[in-house]
Amino acid sequence: MARLSGFERLTSVDEALSTFLSRLKSRVLKAVQVSIHDALERVLAEDVVADRDLPPFDRSAVDGYAVRAQDTFEASQSNPKVLRLTEADEIFANEAKEIWTGNQLTKGSDAVVMLEHAKKTEKGIELKNPVTPRENVSRRGEDISKGEVAMEAGTRLKPHHVGMLAALGMSHVKVTRKPKVAVLATGNELVNPGEEPGPGQVIDVNRLVLSGMCSELGAEPLDLGTVKDDIDEIDAKIRRGLREADLTVTTGGTSVGYADLVPLAVNKLGAPGIIVHGVSMRPGMPTALAAVGDKPIILLSGYPVAAITGFEVFARPIILKMLGVEREPRPMLEARLTRRVASALGRRVFLRVYTFEKNGRFHAEPVRVKGSGVLSTMTKANGYVVIPENREGLEEGELVVVHLFDRVGG
Amino acid sequence: MARLSGFERLTSVDEALSTFLSRLKSRVLKAVQVSIHDALERVLAEDVVADRDLPPFDRSAVDGYAVRAQDTFEASQSNPKVLRLTEADEIFANEAKEIWTGNQLTKGSDAVVMLEHAKKTEKGIELKNPVTPRENVSRRGEDISKGEVAMEAGTRLKPHHVGMLAALGMSHVKVTRKPKVAVLATGNELVNPGEEPGPGQVIDVNRLVLSGMCSELGAEPLDLGTVKDDIDEIDAKIRRGLREADLTVTTGGTSVGYADLVPLAVNKLGAPGIIVHGVSMRPGMPTALAAVGDKPIILLSGYPVAAITGFEVFARPIILKMLGVEREPRPMLEARLTRRVASALGRRVFLRVYTFEKNGRFHAEPVRVKGSGVLSTMTKANGYVVIPENREGLEEGELVVVHLFDRVGG
Repeated sequence: MARLSGFERLTSVDEALSTFLSRLKSRVLKAVQVSIHDALERVLAEDVVADRDLPPFDRSAVDGYAVRAQDTFEASQSNPKVLRLTEADEIFANEAKEIWTGNQLTKGSDAVVMLEHAKKTEKGIELKNPVTPRENVSRRGEDISKGEVAMEAGTRLKPHHVGMLAALGMSHVKVTRKPKVAVLATGNELVNPGEEPGPGQVIDVNRLVLSGMCSELGAEPLDLGTVKDDIDEIDAKIRRGLREADLTVTTGGTSVGYADLVPLAVNKLGAPGIIVHGVSMRPGMPTALAAVGDKPIILLSGYPVAAITGFEVFARPIILKMLGVEREPRPMLEARLTRRVASALGRRVFLRVYTFEKNGRFHAEPVRVKGSGVLSTMTKANGYVVIPENREGLEEGELVVVHLFDRVGG
Repeated sequence: MARLSGFERLTSVDEALSTFLSRLKSRVLKAVQVSIHDALERVLAEDVVADRDLPPFDRSAVDGYAVRAQDTFEASQSNPKVLRLTEADEIFANEAKEIWTGNQLTKGSDAVVMLEHAKKTEKGIELKNPVTPRENVSRRGEDISKGEVAMEAGTRLKPHHVGMLAALGMSHVKVTRKPKVAVLATGNELVNPGEEPGPGQVIDVNRLVLSGMCSELGAEPLDLGTVKDDIDEIDAKIRRGLREADLTVTTGGTSVGYADLVPLAVNKLGAPGIIVHGVSMRPGMPTALAAVGDKPIILLSGYPVAAITGFEVFARPIILKMLGVEREPRPMLEARLTRRVASALGRRVFLRVYTFEKNGRFHAEPVRVKGSGVLSTMTKANGYVVIPENREGLEEGELVVVHLFDRVGG
C-alpha cells in the first residue's frame, strides 16, 4: 500500500509534456477573417506579404526645401549658394521649393535642405552647406518593399503590428480561430463565486482563475460550472467539453484517494484516456494528462496554485500550438536570489518569487509558502523561478531566470 | 533663422515630464463597481480587506487519516501503532477517520496521516511513524486572515487576483474608471485605413496604433478621426476631445514648419496651452505637451515610431496616474548589446532592439534604422533600450536593460 506520493510512478515534466503532445494530432486551428480594428492580440494565420512599397513614394523626412543636390555641391560658408524659390510642381536647375515632412518629393529634386540650414532672402534661399543626393529623403520602399514578408504567420498582433497591417492597405486579416477551452471544477465542497459557503464548504476560484489565464492567452473559456464528486455528473460535463471545446481542463479529484473520480470518468470516455498521471513537479504533482480521440483533457489539482502551475506547464503550450504560436515565453528577467531555497532532487519546483529593482540591480525574493493551497503566495509574487530536477535547491545570490506574470517591483 | 532642430530650445525628457505633471491637477479617476467576472486587467480602486479567514477552517492538505497526534507519538518501525477506524463525526483516543484533501479536519483530530504512510488492516490502520500536531493540516487563516489587506489599491488584477477576490466572497469589486483617451490624426496627406491612397497620400496608422496602446493599458480610446491641416477643423476636434475625454492625443503638425498648426490651435483653446514644445529625445523630438484647464493634451509627431515613443514616454505615465497605478514598468530584461551604437550627447535615445536567448544568455541586437518613419523597425524589434543623455552611445557587449513590448526570441 505504501506508494511514493500515492502514485505508482511520477513522470518528469519534460517526458509528460512530450508524451502528451506526441499522442495529440495537434494542429493549428482554422483561420478566421477579422477587421484590423479587432485584430489586437490575435495571431496571424498566414504570412503578410506587402502588396506595395512603404513609403509608397520618395518623401521628405524634414521641413525644408526640395533641391537638386548637384546644385548645392559648391555651397560653402564663404561662398553661399543661392537657389531661386519656385511654386511650380517641378523644379529645374538652381531652383528650390518649400516642402514639409511627409510630403512627396517634388519632381526634379533629389534631396531636401532642412529649414534651419537655409536662409530665406529676397533672391531665394541661401545655402552655406551642400547636401548629398537623397539627404533628408525617406525613400520609397525603405520601410517595406513590395513582395517582402512584412510579418510571419504565428505573430501575436501588438499595436504596431496592427499599424503595419493598416499601412499595407489591409482592412481585414486572417487570424487563427480562438481555441475554446472548457473549464470544469469538481468537488463536493465547492460553491460558486458569489455564493456564501456553508460549514465545510469553500468557494471555487479555479474556474475564474483558469478562465482568466485562457483569456490572457487569446483563448475563449467555456465555463462548465462545478460538479459534485459523482462520476456520472463528471462524465456528462466532460462529454460537453469534448463536444464543444478544443481543450477541456478540470480541477480537483485527481489525487489517488476516494475522490479520484475524474481519471475514472475520463478513462470511460474512450481511447487513449489517461496518458500521464502524476508528474514530478511541485506544486501540481497530481496533474494528469489525457485525451479522448484528438481532444486533449488536462486534469489539474483542486488547489489553486497547483492548478495554475499545471495549467502554465501543460495547457499553455497546447493552447499556443492551437494558435500557431511557435514560441511565446513569459517575459523573462535575470535576478539574484535573496535567500537560499531547498528543494528535493528529482522534482521540478516552480518557486514563486517577488522580483524587484534596487540600485539598478534585479533581485528575486522567494515567497514563503505555508501550504500548497495558498493563493496569497501568487498575489505576493510577480514571477516564478524553475528549480530543475538535478538541483537540491538554489543558493543565496545565485543568478536565476524569473518568468514574470506581473510587473517588476521597485 | 538657423535654429537647433528648428526649436528655440529642447527640453530634457525628465524636465518635460515633471513640468507637465506639475501643471496638471492629476488625480485618480473615480471608482466604478464591476462584477469579478469583468475585473481582469482592471485596477483596484481601494484596498481589499479580508472579511474572513482563508481557508475558512482547518482542513486536510492530503488524502489520509485524521488522527490525534498524541496517539501516534509511540509508533515506530518495530512497534507499529494501531488506530481504530471510525465513521463517526468526531474521533476520540486511539481512533482515526478517513479524510480527503481539502476536507474540514475531523472534530477531535489535530493531524493527518498520509494514505501511503498507513497500512489498512482488519483492526484499523497501522502506523510505523508518528505525526506531529498540525502535520498535513492547512490551518484556518494561513492564506489570509480576517482583517488583513489582501490586495492594495492600484493593483492591476491578474487572473490570480480575481481568484483571490472570489475566495474572499466578493462578487463585485471597485475598480478605477477607464481613462478615455481621444486620438486625432492631422495631415492633408492622410487617408483612413481601408481607403486606397491616391498620389502623394498615405494611410494613417497612428490612430490604430495609439488606440491599441490605450487598450493595452486599460484605457478606452475615442477615435476623433483624421483632419486636414486646417486650424478650424483641428480646433473643433480638440474641443471634442477636451469635452469627452480625460486625455487628448494628436499626431502630426507639431514640427516648426508650415504645418505647425496643432500647437497654434491648442494655444487658442485656453490656458495654460502649450507647456513644453520640443523634447531632447529621439525619436519623438517634436513632441509637445499641453493642457487646457485640467485636461492634458499630448501632441505627437506624425511619424508612427516617433508617435509611439512620445506616447510611451508621456501618455503612458499619465494614463497610469489616472488609473491609480503607482508603478508599472514594462517587463525588463538585462541583455548584452550585440554591437556598438552611436548617439548624440544631450539627447535621450530610445533604441529599438531585438532581444533573444542563446546558450542561456540574453542578447539585444539593435535594429538598423533607415528613417524615423520606419514602422518595420518596431515589427522587427521586441523592446527598447534607453541611451541616456550623458552617453555618446553604447558599447558592444555592454549590459543594458531592455524594456520589452513583445516576447523574447530564442
